[in-house]
Amino acid sequence: MRPVSFRTGFLRQAPGSVLVEQGGTRVLAAVSIDEQVPRWLRGKERGWLTAEYGMLPLSSGQRIRREREGLKGRSTEIQRLIGRSLRAAVDLRRLGERTVRVDCDVIEADGGTRTASITGAFVALALALDRLDRRGAFAEPPLIRQIAAVSVGVVRGEPLLDLDYAEDSRAEVDLNVVQDAAGRFIEVQGTAEGAPFPRSALDGLLDLATAGNRELCRRQREVLAGIALPEGG
Amino acid sequence: MRPVSFRTGFLRQAPGSVLVEQGGTRVLAAVSIDEQVPRWLRGKERGWLTAEYGMLPLSSGQRIRREREGLKGRSTEIQRLIGRSLRAAVDLRRLGERTVRVDCDVIEADGGTRTASITGAFVALALALDRLDRRGAFAEPPLIRQIAAVSVGVVRGEPLLDLDYAEDSRAEVDLNVVQDAAGRFIEVQGTAEGAPFPRSALDGLLDLATAGNRELCRRQREVLAGIALPEGG
Amino acid sequence: MRPVSFRTGFLRQAPGSVLVEQGGTRVLAAVSIDEQVPRWLRGKERGWLTAEYGMLPLSSGQRIRREREGLKGRSTEIQRLIGRSLRAAVDLRRLGERTVRVDCDVIEADGGTRTASITGAFVALALALDRLDRRGAFAEPPLIRQIAAVSVGVVRGEPLLDLDYAEDSRAEVDLNVVQDAAGRFIEVQGTAEGAPFPRSALDGLLDLATAGNRELCRRQREVLAGIALPEGG
Amino acid sequence: MRPVSFRTGFLRQAPGSVLVEQGGTRVLAAVSIDEQVPRWLRGKERGWLTAEYGMLPLSSGQRIRREREGLKGRSTEIQRLIGRSLRAAVDLRRLGERTVRVDCDVIEADGGTRTASITGAFVALALALDRLDRRGAFAEPPLIRQIAAVSVGVVRGEPLLDLDYAEDSRAEVDLNVVQDAAGRFIEVQGTAEGAPFPRSALDGLLDLATAGNRELCRRQREVLAGIALPEGG
Amino acid sequence: MRPVSFRTGFLRQAPGSVLVEQGGTRVLAAVSIDEQVPRWLRGKERGWLTAEYGMLPLSSGQRIRREREGLKGRSTEIQRLIGRSLRAAVDLRRLGERTVRVDCDVIEADGGTRTASITGAFVALALALDRLDRRGAFAEPPLIRQIAAVSVGVVRGEPLLDLDYAEDSRAEVDLNVVQDAAGRFIEVQGTAEGAPFPRSALDGLLDLATAGNRELCRRQREVLAGIALPEGG
Amino acid sequence: MRPVSFRTGFLRQAPGSVLVEQGGTRVLAAVSIDEQVPRWLRGKERGWLTAEYGMLPLSSGQRIRREREGLKGRSTEIQRLIGRSLRAAVDLRRLGERTVRVDCDVIEADGGTRTASITGAFVALALALDRLDRRGAFAEPPLIRQIAAVSVGVVRGEPLLDLDYAEDSRAEVDLNVVQDAAGRFIEVQGTAEGAPFPRSALDGLLDLATAGNRELCRRQREVLAGIALPEGG
Repeated sequence: MRPVSFRTGFLRQAPGSVLVEQGGTRVLAAVSIDEQVPRWLRGKERGWLTAEYGMLPLSSGQRIRREREGLKGRSTEIQRLIGRSLRAAVDLRRLGERTVRVDCDVIEADGGTRTASITGAFVALALALDRLDRRGAFAEPPLIRQIAAVSVGVVRGEPLLDLDYAEDSRAEVDLNVVQDAAGRFIEVQGTAEGAPFPRSALDGLLDLATAGNRELCRRQREVLAGIALPEGG
Repeated sequence: MRPVSFRTGFLRQAPGSVLVEQGGTRVLAAVSIDEQVPRWLRGKERGWLTAEYGMLPLSSGQRIRREREGLKGRSTEIQRLIGRSLRAAVDLRRLGERTVRVDCDVIEADGGTRTASITGAFVALALALDRLDRRGAFAEPPLIRQIAAVSVGVVRGEPLLDLDYAEDSRAEVDLNVVQDAAGRFIEVQGTAEGAPFPRSALDGLLDLATAGNRELCRRQREVLAGIALPEGG
Repeated sequence: MRPVSFRTGFLRQAPGSVLVEQGGTRVLAAVSIDEQVPRWLRGKERGWLTAEYGMLPLSSGQRIRREREGLKGRSTEIQRLIGRSLRAAVDLRRLGERTVRVDCDVIEADGGTRTASITGAFVALALALDRLDRRGAFAEPPLIRQIAAVSVGVVRGEPLLDLDYAEDSRAEVDLNVVQDAAGRFIEVQGTAEGAPFPRSALDGLLDLATAGNRELCRRQREVLAGIALPEGG
Repeated sequence: MRPVSFRTGFLRQAPGSVLVEQGGTRVLAAVSIDEQVPRWLRGKERGWLTAEYGMLPLSSGQRIRREREGLKGRSTEIQRLIGRSLRAAVDLRRLGERTVRVDCDVIEADGGTRTASITGAFVALALALDRLDRRGAFAEPPLIRQIAAVSVGVVRGEPLLDLDYAEDSRAEVDLNVVQDAAGRFIEVQGTAEGAPFPRSALDGLLDLATAGNRELCRRQREVLAGIALPEGG
Repeated sequence: MRPVSFRTGFLRQAPGSVLVEQGGTRVLAAVSIDEQVPRWLRGKERGWLTAEYGMLPLSSGQRIRREREGLKGRSTEIQRLIGRSLRAAVDLRRLGERTVRVDCDVIEADGGTRTASITGAFVALALALDRLDRRGAFAEPPLIRQIAAVSVGVVRGEPLLDLDYAEDSRAEVDLNVVQDAAGRFIEVQGTAEGAPFPRSALDGLLDLATAGNRELCRRQREVLAGIALPEGG
Repeated sequence: MRPVSFRTGFLRQAPGSVLVEQGGTRVLAAVSIDEQVPRWLRGKERGWLTAEYGMLPLSSGQRIRREREGLKGRSTEIQRLIGRSLRAAVDLRRLGERTVRVDCDVIEADGGTRTASITGAFVALALALDRLDRRGAFAEPPLIRQIAAVSVGVVRGEPLLDLDYAEDSRAEVDLNVVQDAAGRFIEVQGTAEGAPFPRSALDGLLDLATAGNRELCRRQREVLAGIALPEGG
């Protein structure tokens, strides 16, 4: 796995923020909390969590157009994945009628931006909820699960953990795995980029991802030292 | 698995079309072929395949708004899945500078519309390519792989194959699996709807999906009797 | 006039639905009812009826783009015509503060899709209102008029009833007529496709349309046997 | 019929323009000509004519929103009607590979804006084509037909010609008729606003419209004195 | 400065309207007043003023596309300038919970359309507020300042007042100045079209603009004779 | 003036990039160069420069919506200002048929984001053009002028240089000034936020801005040491 670092508090005005760096990939994940829920949830005594994902135009070698007239399919897919994954980390009832907004902005892209977004966003989320918790906002802390995500793939027949852009472009299989701290699965998204892959390849990749996510969870706990994290997964 | 049927040639004017019925779900899959490729592919001596997915407003018990001002995230995600899956069935070089357009329209929705779309679209695709092949369009037939898709899930702790809407709403895990006729994976998309799920649950669901897709491939071959399908997966 | 058939209850989950087939044209007309009115009508003790029209991409020999970024002028024009016509069949005060939504989706197009939509939508509307009426929703039944629509035209100097696509493409005059069961006019839309046409041609076409709509009303009554229809027009 | 006047050359920079005033309705119709055709017509040795219609926000007593995010259905319908009607006045082959653009902007609205737009746009069109013709642009003059339009309606059972806004709001039948100078029909659009109307009412309205359009054609010829108009309709 | 004229009451149905003519530029400025404020201002006991700016397609020698799918940057910039400028003329608290809507539509463009819009809109605003005041709507009149705007520029090294289109196209510096009747500044927007300009050039242009705006204010007072204008600026 | 720093090369994959920090405001300015021009400039042997401006959602204390469905007026206005200003620094003929794209993304906002964007973008532009120049792309270097921008304002009657957010919110006058290294003006945009301001106030603010921009130019030259900058302004 490529070196990982978290720079918390990157944005002074955001309740929770982190600049996560994983190899050449840098993502700014930030969390804010609205004291109301979308219209369709009002009065139901539970909260919501939603995510947005974007790339700075020059985060990539080839300039990327701003998505000013509707999102591309890829961005839609990624931000839905981020949102679903982080909702698994939160008890929406304990959150109360609040909306957690997760913003993931890719500063530099070198593979694995969606998984780095999830891993980083968990850190920003823990910071933001902890801050609110200290103000007495919650009867019980709404963070119920620690999560991390990593990409694995097969390149020239070899399983690889945490692919960079060059590896990702040549990968025969591309698998993104979101797991909790106990190695249970929250999301598994695998695609054959070339030929279909056998069950044995899938099994190997899942093992590799599990090891990678275990390590990422360890790093998250280090950077979140001082914040109570949910135990046992 | 719920009963499956294919009504081929449902649309008289489409090169390939099928009304696929799987339990209470009915999807109209139709394929047309443009004799040109998108601008970014011109001159590269290969073709393209793209898919669109929609639901009729009253395909569901609750009327669904037409997506006339941009697609919802769910539709985007599904049509990208359909497109990727069917591209795995085709050799784009053999296709030549043509664009295959796959249209999946849900007439009635009772769970599993995205997987039924893929399974049905394969049939429509085989019909459309065969028709073009008979006219001598291809040096070698571009259809290189038979594919099918099925949804599996865990409901009250039990693994279930081919969930209907009621089951799907209660599922703890939701997994969509696209495979070739040899059981190799093209796409695996799994989501924990409630608590994260252990590796053992994933393993069991993959077994179940493999059995389901094997059966779906058998039905496809029946309905496509008379059309040469790629062998061995 | 081409053979006409109505397949009611085509969509299991819609309050009223019919697949209307008129020659090679097939339209799925479905009606649902919202228990509220648009904002501008609230508190006025009357209801509303609105219609949407769409074509499946492969309903025509030449694939039609989905209207995902705004409607084309033709679709706008047609759905406004369908809405106006069906509003003439309903007493909006008796309807109460409800919105009737009419969805017309063309499965296959071979001329006369807008008129078939109206004729079919009347059947779906009668079914949906009858169903609600049986539950005691209305003090008085809101269906006050039976309506049907047909296209007529002049091809090579000859007046023709119910043109198919080939005839329609060559027509010198194109006239769509919506009438009640007594032959009174609800909507008349005529266009000279080539040279302007004299009053005598218009008179002949109106006669022909009246005969056609009388026959269509007869067929509607057959298929709606068992449902009380408004008398005398 | 309300008093009609035409102020030609209202816009100094437009090839053809007229401020048409009909009662309290004022419409600015202007015509410009592009020396190319839309992509789908290129190389076909014929031209095209297209129209746009808009209302100034304060043309009406109740301020109208600018249509900056897509056209309303009504505007779409009207500008399609204007375009179809004026195409009937022009031989598109003689026009050559040019696009005629007709812009109708309602300065003040007091009923009959769509028909005043057509009547006025004919004048602007004749001026613009004549100007181009004098420069030798055409082998044969492309203006082949004189057209005008008027609205008629039934108010309290009485047929009325050229309704103002107050009359139009109370009309039981609303009919817009586009005719050539010989009284032949180009477009007939009639709608029952209340109860359906009998054939006899339609017949009476068509007679009234024919008289009105004959008068409007006479006024057009007066204001276009000095410009050769097509004879006999 | 080019000849200026104001034709008040140009639109019969608008509370305040004026056709302002400045050289070859003609702008229709109209003001209407809503008896409510935008959502974000509700309950704050103050009003709002907002402006929209548009050009008729044939107001210019080269036809301008209608902005039907979003505004161009230039129009956005101009209407924001108009809005800010006119808000300086009004005490929003005295206005009460009302929204003043200013519509500026360019009929013919020959340079200086944004400044003519502001100068004209002030006249329309004074008329509309006076009319409302006469009905007793205000405890104190909300019009607190008279404003006018003019463009100045440097052409071939010479400072020029009130540039027409030909001059504007060749200008090395382009400066738009909005001032009150006492010559104080409300808005100053200067741009070097070619080389940057020295402070001395800016100083000269500001003098020229001040003289121009003083004259425009004098003309406004003439045309608004009979309406009480705020004194001393 | 608040402390200013430039962190060049912030984005590894961008031809020119800088993170400019001015007080609590941080903007990432990045420049890329396309080897073609927009369609309307093709074949004219000159280049183009265009700018885009955006704010990260949590750059501000109050989360800002992403502009995914069209730009807000403020963003449009700012990016047009950035583009015009930087075009003044470049000889577009010497640039050749290339498009310079300037992307300014606000990471944290504490007043003066538009002026910091311009000052920073000049640095990124100089880096990107120098890089291309070293590869021999230009016959003559296209960078012809050094520019910087600063905001000045009046707060409680006192002229202030380089306002932070708190000062800006209370400012009575707000003036943004873009100048070259010799103090000549490229853009002057001043707005009375409260009462109109006299000429003397404007004069004082222009003096203050000139001093500020002189200092900013000095800092730019420091950070661009080793790159040849245009002399004398």
